[in-house]
Amino acid sequence: MKFSGVFSPAAVPLDAQLDINGPRLARHFRRLVDDGCHGVVAFGTTGEATSFTVDERRRALDALLSSGFPAERVIVGTGCCARPDTVELSRHALAAGCAGVLVLPPFYFKGVSDEGLYRSFGAVVDGIGDDRLRMLVYNFPRMSGIAISAALLRRLADAWPGVVAGVKDSSGERESTAAYLAQCPELSVFPGSESYLLDALRGGAAGCISATANVNAAGVRRVFDAWRAGEAADAASAQEAAGAVRRAAEQEPMIAGMKALLARRDGDPGWERVRAPLVTLEPARGEALWNAMLAAGWSPGGEIAASA
Amino acid sequence: MKFSGVFSPAAVPLDAQLDINGPRLARHFRRLVDDGCHGVVAFGTTGEATSFTVDERRRALDALLSSGFPAERVIVGTGCCARPDTVELSRHALAAGCAGVLVLPPFYFKGVSDEGLYRSFGAVVDGIGDDRLRMLVYNFPRMSGIAISAALLRRLADAWPGVVAGVKDSSGERESTAAYLAQCPELSVFPGSESYLLDALRGGAAGCISATANVNAAGVRRVFDAWRAGEAADAASAQEAAGAVRRAAEQEPMIAGMKALLARRDGDPGWERVRAPLVTLEPARGEALWNAMLAAGWSPGGEIAASA
Repeated sequence: MKFSGVFSPAAVPLDAQLDINGPRLARHFRRLVDDGCHGVVAFGTTGEATSFTVDERRRALDALLSSGFPAERVIVGTGCCARPDTVELSRHALAAGCAGVLVLPPFYFKGVSDEGLYRSFGAVVDGIGDDRLRMLVYNFPRMSGIAISAALLRRLADAWPGVVAGVKDSSGERESTAAYLAQCPELSVFPGSESYLLDALRGGAAGCISATANVNAAGVRRVFDAWRAGEAADAASAQEAAGAVRRAAEQEPMIAGMKALLARRDGDPGWERVRAPLVTLEPARGEALWNAMLAAGWSPGGEIAASA
Repeated sequence: MKFSGVFSPAAVPLDAQLDINGPRLARHFRRLVDDGCHGVVAFGTTGEATSFTVDERRRALDALLSSGFPAERVIVGTGCCARPDTVELSRHALAAGCAGVLVLPPFYFKGVSDEGLYRSFGAVVDGIGDDRLRMLVYNFPRMSGIAISAALLRRLADAWPGVVAGVKDSSGERESTAAYLAQCPELSVFPGSESYLLDALRGGAAGCISATANVNAAGVRRVFDAWRAGEAADAASAQEAAGAVRRAAEQEPMIAGMKALLARRDGDPGWERVRAPLVTLEPARGEALWNAMLAAGWSPGGEIAASA
């Protein structure tokens, strides 16, 4: 089974003590699927994963699944610098029945070799020691400071076929996504943004895993569905519409921006909380972002936006 | 009490399973002090801190102190992306009687604001909630991707006087160290290298915290002692000698290089082990490094190197 579709790395709501608000998190996951996501990533970058301890991440996932959210729709971000933490979180996700894990490279040391990264991912796979594992490698050099080359992904896929299932490419560079598609055609390659989703799908991408799907899942889904249905004109106009919304979203830091929009959409100011080092958007900027999104054709309700 | 002197961020020896070798670690700490270190940093960058879990770091510190190594000579690196982990490790160090903690900024998110970093360090200090805390802020932008401005350090020191005790500046830039000294003269400012130790001491620095002190503590100490004794000519020649050794060390990745040298010095190949994403130096490079160090005047025995 190959991963495909539109995924959102869910923003994580916090309570007044900046702890994870479990019930609100579960509501958000359900809403994302209702709005069009095929699945949801728990604890990606947008989910402020690295700001939470292993225990906080385990407990939040348990609470989410206890609420009834289907584990098979969840991919869990488990990449930690300390690989035993990655192993623990991944085993936990696997035991809970989640569809897969999304794994960052260790991101403290810079200038490390492909050989070192290969061994680090290998230590994770071997440490988990479970053939049911489905791992997406997470390439986000702007945050992690580490670029996953297509040659490295190829090597990992050859060493652990089936287990190394794909890549989330948040480089923002089409050339990077194209290199993964060329060298690893059997894997699920997900751009980390819908900015060039249609082109990526035409090239063999599996879909996308996009932060902006937190507020525009329907718009992103429309690109995917039109493409899959072979409706070229609809796909192109859906891409144009989703791209315009994405560009509006990019005017502010992504995570605080998504949370500002969710707070306004849900009438729930608590949504705006982030853990440091992130900071909440000032109200005027949140308001401006909301208006810019509307001007770009965004539909806060989650309905399919009218094409331009 | 102001921190001062020569500190080594200790390399961490691993066993065949890549777990921390406690007895060997304790021997290394003792040797560092015997060779001239005023104190030792447990779990700095050179100690591969981020590659170990919170539990591994706690247990290794417990084992070290149980061996009889004096806690008052230990500064513990505790900076994690998840600030509750930093709080836990810092409380543990404080309860064990350690001299202080060395705290990285959260290092996953990039492009964060000084305000966000201020709140992140503040959450650590407030979370620890103990007036005995002595915190060194850790500036290592090449690894962490985050630069701690002198203005931010000033703000932290004003908010938590006494508690925010200093900075380790591993930027490698004299101007950065000079800015800390100018804006935070009451703090202990440690360059992260002995390359410009004498100049830094003249400018008010407290000493240095240097990876190369793992193998050249005596040589670095000589700079400090000669400067403190007011022996300008000796200090200058000691600086020249230590600088030459440092430059030789910098021809290889620092951590694998230090471990290769320690393996040869101690006749103990196990010293070379690292956790991925780091990789052990190939034997020929380790040999070349050893020879380059000797050619630069390094004395493996830890005796004071003859000045050039």
